[in-house]
Amino acid sequence: MYSFKNDYSEGAHPRILNTLLESNLEQTEGYGEDKYSLKAIEILKSKIQNDNIDIHFFVGGTQTNLTAISAFLRPHEAAIAANTGHILVHETGAIEATGHKAISVTVPDGKLRPCDVQLALDEHTDEHMVKPKLVYISNSTEIGTIYSKTELEDLSNFCKEKKLILFLDGARLGSALCSTDNDLSLSDLARLTDAFYIGGTKNGALLGEALVICNDSLKEDFRFHIKQKGAMLAKGKVLGIQFLELFKDDLYFELASHANKMADLLKEGIDSMGYKYLIASPSNQIFPIFPNSVIEKLKGNYSFIVWSKVDDNFSSIRLVTSWATNEQAVKDFIHDLKTLS
Amino acid sequence: MYSFKNDYSEGAHPRILNTLLESNLEQTEGYGEDKYSLKAIEILKSKIQNDNIDIHFFVGGTQTNLTAISAFLRPHEAAIAANTGHILVHETGAIEATGHKAISVTVPDGKLRPCDVQLALDEHTDEHMVKPKLVYISNSTEIGTIYSKTELEDLSNFCKEKKLILFLDGARLGSALCSTDNDLSLSDLARLTDAFYIGGTKNGALLGEALVICNDSLKEDFRFHIKQKGAMLAKGKVLGIQFLELFKDDLYFELASHANKMADLLKEGIDSMGYKYLIASPSNQIFPIFPNSVIEKLKGNYSFIVWSKVDDNFSSIRLVTSWATNEQAVKDFIHDLKTLS
Amino acid sequence: MYSFKNDYSEGAHPRILNTLLESNLEQTEGYGEDKYSLKAIEILKSKIQNDNIDIHFFVGGTQTNLTAISAFLRPHEAAIAANTGHILVHETGAIEATGHKAISVTVPDGKLRPCDVQLALDEHTDEHMVKPKLVYISNSTEIGTIYSKTELEDLSNFCKEKKLILFLDGARLGSALCSTDNDLSLSDLARLTDAFYIGGTKNGALLGEALVICNDSLKEDFRFHIKQKGAMLAKGKVLGIQFLELFKDDLYFELASHANKMADLLKEGIDSMGYKYLIASPSNQIFPIFPNSVIEKLKGNYSFIVWSKVDDNFSSIRLVTSWATNEQAVKDFIHDLKTLS
Amino acid sequence: MYSFKNDYSEGAHPRILNTLLESNLEQTEGYGEDKYSLKAIEILKSKIQNDNIDIHFFVGGTQTNLTAISAFLRPHEAAIAANTGHILVHETGAIEATGHKAISVTVPDGKLRPCDVQLALDEHTDEHMVKPKLVYISNSTEIGTIYSKTELEDLSNFCKEKKLILFLDGARLGSALCSTDNDLSLSDLARLTDAFYIGGTKNGALLGEALVICNDSLKEDFRFHIKQKGAMLAKGKVLGIQFLELFKDDLYFELASHANKMADLLKEGIDSMGYKYLIASPSNQIFPIFPNSVIEKLKGNYSFIVWSKVDDNFSSIRLVTSWATNEQAVKDFIHDLKTLS
Repeated sequence: MYSFKNDYSEGAHPRILNTLLESNLEQTEGYGEDKYSLKAIEILKSKIQNDNIDIHFFVGGTQTNLTAISAFLRPHEAAIAANTGHILVHETGAIEATGHKAISVTVPDGKLRPCDVQLALDEHTDEHMVKPKLVYISNSTEIGTIYSKTELEDLSNFCKEKKLILFLDGARLGSALCSTDNDLSLSDLARLTDAFYIGGTKNGALLGEALVICNDSLKEDFRFHIKQKGAMLAKGKVLGIQFLELFKDDLYFELASHANKMADLLKEGIDSMGYKYLIASPSNQIFPIFPNSVIEKLKGNYSFIVWSKVDDNFSSIRLVTSWATNEQAVKDFIHDLKTLS
Repeated sequence: MYSFKNDYSEGAHPRILNTLLESNLEQTEGYGEDKYSLKAIEILKSKIQNDNIDIHFFVGGTQTNLTAISAFLRPHEAAIAANTGHILVHETGAIEATGHKAISVTVPDGKLRPCDVQLALDEHTDEHMVKPKLVYISNSTEIGTIYSKTELEDLSNFCKEKKLILFLDGARLGSALCSTDNDLSLSDLARLTDAFYIGGTKNGALLGEALVICNDSLKEDFRFHIKQKGAMLAKGKVLGIQFLELFKDDLYFELASHANKMADLLKEGIDSMGYKYLIASPSNQIFPIFPNSVIEKLKGNYSFIVWSKVDDNFSSIRLVTSWATNEQAVKDFIHDLKTLS
Repeated sequence: MYSFKNDYSEGAHPRILNTLLESNLEQTEGYGEDKYSLKAIEILKSKIQNDNIDIHFFVGGTQTNLTAISAFLRPHEAAIAANTGHILVHETGAIEATGHKAISVTVPDGKLRPCDVQLALDEHTDEHMVKPKLVYISNSTEIGTIYSKTELEDLSNFCKEKKLILFLDGARLGSALCSTDNDLSLSDLARLTDAFYIGGTKNGALLGEALVICNDSLKEDFRFHIKQKGAMLAKGKVLGIQFLELFKDDLYFELASHANKMADLLKEGIDSMGYKYLIASPSNQIFPIFPNSVIEKLKGNYSFIVWSKVDDNFSSIRLVTSWATNEQAVKDFIHDLKTLS
Repeated sequence: MYSFKNDYSEGAHPRILNTLLESNLEQTEGYGEDKYSLKAIEILKSKIQNDNIDIHFFVGGTQTNLTAISAFLRPHEAAIAANTGHILVHETGAIEATGHKAISVTVPDGKLRPCDVQLALDEHTDEHMVKPKLVYISNSTEIGTIYSKTELEDLSNFCKEKKLILFLDGARLGSALCSTDNDLSLSDLARLTDAFYIGGTKNGALLGEALVICNDSLKEDFRFHIKQKGAMLAKGKVLGIQFLELFKDDLYFELASHANKMADLLKEGIDSMGYKYLIASPSNQIFPIFPNSVIEKLKGNYSFIVWSKVDDNFSSIRLVTSWATNEQAVKDFIHDLKTLS
């Protein structure tokens, strides 16, 4: 049984574990003020080509989202997200639990355009309604699509004009930036968003997300929020070391490129059999549509999520690749699919 | 420079890192439903000698406290803690951030007795005040003291009678249970508290606390709360593996015993020079009182926290030992202290 | 300029003000424990024909909704409401501010059926999502429709089966119960819901809503929640006296009947000119569709809300009548409308 | 039985009720945008001699405190209050329910001095603790004491220097400002605090507090917070009319002066018998110490709160006078006390 269920089934890139072992008995400062975390921040700033940013490490995406969004908003302010947005769907109301409404805007492809955000603004006109203040986007999105530089620039300009905070969830940022369709850089993200994060958990780390705060007005006292939300690790170096390893050279991008390459290989095989997709997704999540009978048989050897019913005979499934996806497993899957079709 | 500043300066016991490495590329279920976490739970239940408990893994103490306490209480209910309690002092208002007041009761030794709790009850008489509902204790306490079985039984009986939830913060439970003064077992804790946790971060894990819910009425839907607070790790096995290693034999207790032994060695040396302590503490935190001049000189070779001013010439410092404390460093410290005194 | 903008433009029924004056200098207990409030509760219980209910008075609808819903739910639980539901649209995220998600279900007529609720249940399947626990309905709804006894029984049975709390917002309950289409009684409401409230503000009171808690498990410690949310009036008798006056005979129903009669008179006139409605509403809010040119001219003499654009030439407006609506003003409106058409 | 239990036992000054009656059937705008509320705000600004302030009306003190404090603070920030502060003692954790810790500083007389606040600042040194940001004071305090102009200036200067928000709870501001010991004016309050409120409920209104926001940075979007906390009255004119009546001439001050005069009369009589007080209080709350036997007998004819045990034979009681206190009742009380002593 091989799993294409998600991109967090395996552990970490071995280099990370080895560095954890090597530095294991060294005494370091706690709470993220150790030399590894400081060095990781320095390296990330150089990769982002921006010194005027604050970087904080978190353990996971929901924790990052809830800490950042609750720190950025006043009590009456709300976040706007695409209907597929992770904060709306899969975080057990974490944003609401901090007191803020998350407004859903239905879009076809997981991405928000200025006109989508404008819809939410139009519906919130006075003090009897929440005040939309933060635009939450994901790149890649929860359905595998990615933002182009033009799209992100348009949205960024719109947000600046409307005094909205633009926050980018980068749980799968590696795959987005390494997509063959991508024309965005880390430096672009720092220029175009008020804050974004670089996901480690889904791209080679044991656990870890690096939040980058770009807008000066959002930086003050941020460590208080981290601590209050239970997100400040005593042994902060565990996070620092991971980002150090991932970014001291280009390991992060190599890992994401591998994930994408494996997804491309899957698509190549699926395309060759004439199957369609629920949506075109140039990253490490793909959503092919198969006959239900084929899906049932694939379940014998592979685990994956049945995403949605298309009609009585067809459904889409989600296949996710990762830094650790085995090329042979991909080939086997395509082979099996051909046999079954 | 050797650090006695805390018990989270080093990484994890090497066996933990090795198991992480060995299992690294194996595909497992996410969110704590992997075989390592399940096995760790099974082993913990057997160590606790209790099958009727629920166990959940967390990344750190503040996260455990805020998730459990907010899950256990209704909006108008409050926690009672000793004035030294971690939730009152060092969690940036994490409990209040979930909506609940934490009531402080001043005690001399970090421990709550029924009469201390009764004081808080007496002051909260009607609906114009919060309703005290949960008693938060730490073992060992934040100042190194520990509860005896009699003390915990008395408090437990009192809480049952008053319909109060008894919650025990075990961030340093290992050191408490391995203290030469201790007569409590894990099994006693499950019998006497409604919930408690077994701290890993401060006793050999990279990160990790195991929350044990004993009271049936507090178990329902608990995983929703974990997820909502951002505490559910995608790669939950990272936590499972650590507790598996710590408890599959007696590693957890061996590590805590080492920490205590190192503290005892420090005390032996300090005692021999006739110094006193701020408080007698039979665990891995000790609070000797030294002349300020001596403290200044010690700072040259050791890092530690200056805890409190005793008078114009004397202060207490906090020395913390851990599973990783080097015996030679302890001997050096005592040697240096003798030279300085 | 006559206003059909809402049902809270005027003060209170004069009898209420007179009783406030008469009892003004009498010394009474504070916080709702005065003899007027106690008497009002007694009378309400007899009108509801149910002794096993708890009744609490509030100042307004949003306050009632947020206090009740936050008291009834655990942190991970959510409310389900129709897309037009007041808590979703016009309470500035009050429910979210207490930590709970409000789930929107789109329906054509402001009313929830079991199948609508089931849709929300189907989408919330595990601990990565909030747990839908409370069904929020309004009667009359925000668009003037009302529940029949069969509809409410169906929904009530469904909620019981699914262990959902059924909460009815009765800000305009008077108009609903006095509608010619109505077959529900106060006693039915106590039997079929877990809690509901009887709106005073929009039916003859200066301010005031009477929350009725029917489900025993929701009653405990409720006054703590009232106080915590700032909803406990020092001079609670101000609320008690109002409900006493409204219910010691049938004043409440007489006032609501007048409001409905005025709405019927409006409809009669509008019907006679062949205009249509956005939705058929048998209560004190009606939504006729007029040519934009007519609407512009009506604005000269009447204030009302332009509700929605129907097409390029037609819009719907909202006309609201109340206990205080002047019959001559209604006749004038119809007369003017005829002249304009 | 005559009550000296509190200052909210009676209704409102008759002039208020009469104006409510006179304006009753007039149609006005909702939600505090009616002409009465606007006029009341205009008059209050002129009384405060300050145009650069925002004024909002609330129903009660807890509601005002929780709405203002939660609007003013970011999530990690805390309020500091004297140990007797209403938010600490008698609001059922309302501040904590909005997510903020309230820090208690023990003082002898209900008043905070810069050195008291400094104590709280000294104890909160880094991001592991909440950040003290708002200083909550009451005038008169919960134990009847009042601030002198010098005291308030000192505190105000200190707060400005430390970037702390100074918030004054004026539930009993009338009595404070009309005390013979007072040298503060409304205009001073606007100059020295960031926000304060003028209590109506305890000085002649049915219900109502007028919040004055002086600091520009706290004004933005404030009506969103009012609505979100359930504090925005549909019939806002009910509050506007009350403050209009109280301030269109000097009724507010006349009523408070009467209350103080009645308290002075009580003190005069009590003094003449040689009794002492728990604390000297120059406002409408006094705390005489009587033999327990005398207290028991007084209970036969008067209701009041037994405040605290002084020793085995003596206790202090709280006597509260109000705008409505009957002079004859005061004389009777003194007469009875003389008879009993």
